[in-house]
Amino acid sequence: MSAIAREPTDSANHLGERELIERIVTALSVACPIAPRGPGGDCAHLITQTDRLYRVVTVDGVILGRHFDLSTAPEAAGRKLVHRNLSDLAAAGAHPSDALLSFVIGGDVSVQWLEAFAHGAGKAAHAAGLEIVGGDIARGPDGHIAAHLSTTGFAHRILTRGQANEGDVLFVTGKLGGSRLGHHLHFAARTIEGEWLCGQPAVTACTDLSDGLAKDLPGLLAKNQGATIDLSATPISEAAEKLSKSDGVPALEHAWCDGEDYELLFAIEASRADWLESLFTKTFPQTPLQRLGAVTVGSGLSDTRGAKIPQGGHSHFGVKKA
Amino acid sequence: MSAIAREPTDSANHLGERELIERIVTALSVACPIAPRGPGGDCAHLITQTDRLYRVVTVDGVILGRHFDLSTAPEAAGRKLVHRNLSDLAAAGAHPSDALLSFVIGGDVSVQWLEAFAHGAGKAAHAAGLEIVGGDIARGPDGHIAAHLSTTGFAHRILTRGQANEGDVLFVTGKLGGSRLGHHLHFAARTIEGEWLCGQPAVTACTDLSDGLAKDLPGLLAKNQGATIDLSATPISEAAEKLSKSDGVPALEHAWCDGEDYELLFAIEASRADWLESLFTKTFPQTPLQRLGAVTVGSGLSDTRGAKIPQGGHSHFGVKKA
Repeated sequence: MSAIAREPTDSANHLGERELIERIVTALSVACPIAPRGPGGDCAHLITQTDRLYRVVTVDGVILGRHFDLSTAPEAAGRKLVHRNLSDLAAAGAHPSDALLSFVIGGDVSVQWLEAFAHGAGKAAHAAGLEIVGGDIARGPDGHIAAHLSTTGFAHRILTRGQANEGDVLFVTGKLGGSRLGHHLHFAARTIEGEWLCGQPAVTACTDLSDGLAKDLPGLLAKNQGATIDLSATPISEAAEKLSKSDGVPALEHAWCDGEDYELLFAIEASRADWLESLFTKTFPQTPLQRLGAVTVGSGLSDTRGAKIPQGGHSHFGVKKA
Repeated sequence: MSAIAREPTDSANHLGERELIERIVTALSVACPIAPRGPGGDCAHLITQTDRLYRVVTVDGVILGRHFDLSTAPEAAGRKLVHRNLSDLAAAGAHPSDALLSFVIGGDVSVQWLEAFAHGAGKAAHAAGLEIVGGDIARGPDGHIAAHLSTTGFAHRILTRGQANEGDVLFVTGKLGGSRLGHHLHFAARTIEGEWLCGQPAVTACTDLSDGLAKDLPGLLAKNQGATIDLSATPISEAAEKLSKSDGVPALEHAWCDGEDYELLFAIEASRADWLESLFTKTFPQTPLQRLGAVTVGSGLSDTRGAKIPQGGHSHFGVKKA
């Protein structure tokens, strides 16, 4: 399905704003409660949770040409938008609650395509228990599509980056690298794993891997911390191996630098590491868990065997930076 | 100041993502709490309010070429983004709490301009007690700037559209029309008035005027409701009179159809209308308040004196619709 209308009658401009919003809300409907809790008013009005919980908020988007392209199925692009946000909530161990969906699109964008996008987003949100309670649509340059979700979840405690201590053990879920071969569209955010980790007080810090281990691992650590890493333990995906065969870049470098893994990287007190590893594996037998190394004092990453740590990771502006 | 970098060294692309985010957070700083409550992590972690309040959420944006242009001072564009959102919260009678700020910008956008935009947004947010707790930045087409704020407030009850009853009296704050002569950038959201109205149980419905009375008044009413309006009571701004002299369109039509007034339109039980009018005027002596008419059964608007009700209002896509 083309994202740009082939017939003028399928364009956003032709349909007009009111009808456009109705079509999107209809396509989203499995995820939409009714007003005043849902779309339709100036705001959505939600019942406040008890004051024993933290309200956790995040915003993330997908943009045509950056996070999906004209060959991407619109349902998959909509699903990706939702799971990118769910992945941020998972890193905070927060249970998904509700979200606002905003679009900026060219007047030439296909209404059919938008409906399919919204349908994919609504279905993914509903499956995760995330309600889409409102949003906004505005006109941007022709040929442009940007969709953002601002998402709220609730957590029993603050699980975030930068709270690990010296000696804490580092773990990562899943297999890494080569995401552009398909994983970047079809990953499932580690929602249940994140909530479970949040329930373990010995887990001291957590982040999701969106830009690659090479960038997100330093991001997990506090400013004066580094890590010793067993590079040979890096869980390398089949896609990273496959890419390596075609482009000659080591699979390990793909695993560290490609980005869009949407796995969880976390730190846990060393005395609880064995216990956690065993319990996690029993609780989530389908989710690979790998011990990577430990947090140190002093900045920088070093390999336990003296190998070179790949530098890179994804940057949204400018040249790639370490 | 040019929104598009004149020197390559002032471009977003040149600076790189990490530095760009630091610059924006610094420019926003009066409005930013520190992490985990503020920017810096995957999410912001907020203390939940008591369960006696409704959490009220909304999202709204500003886009170059739609809501501001290259001649607009960047601080004013940033301020407008905040007040557009505050106006939605005001319509819900919600007290501003916190917001997430997301940008989609071309790689050629000026960093200096962005900092000034963020500075204007941060200053306006701080003045309103709104904390900016996180955000996102992503690259869009060259020359493109879109900024969205997703905003949370808290209210003691649900004040929204569509809840008025037959016979309720309609009031509007301020003077209407001709917003494009300057008001659209320099308005102040009716935050305090909105919170006060929310505290009056006799106020049954409320909305802010973003697209013009001609579109927002029907939006305030329930599906099977209409209104009888005293058109001669319409509060017409000086700007609408001025525009009328230059373009020949009646000032009344400007007042009904121009949009971007960001005033409050609300309904109140008839028996409390005189009381409210008197108390409002005493409480907010600087804020004009005008009685416009009353809610009726049966759709459509009619003038008490038989004059024609202007049709129009702003639509973001397609041709203008009634």
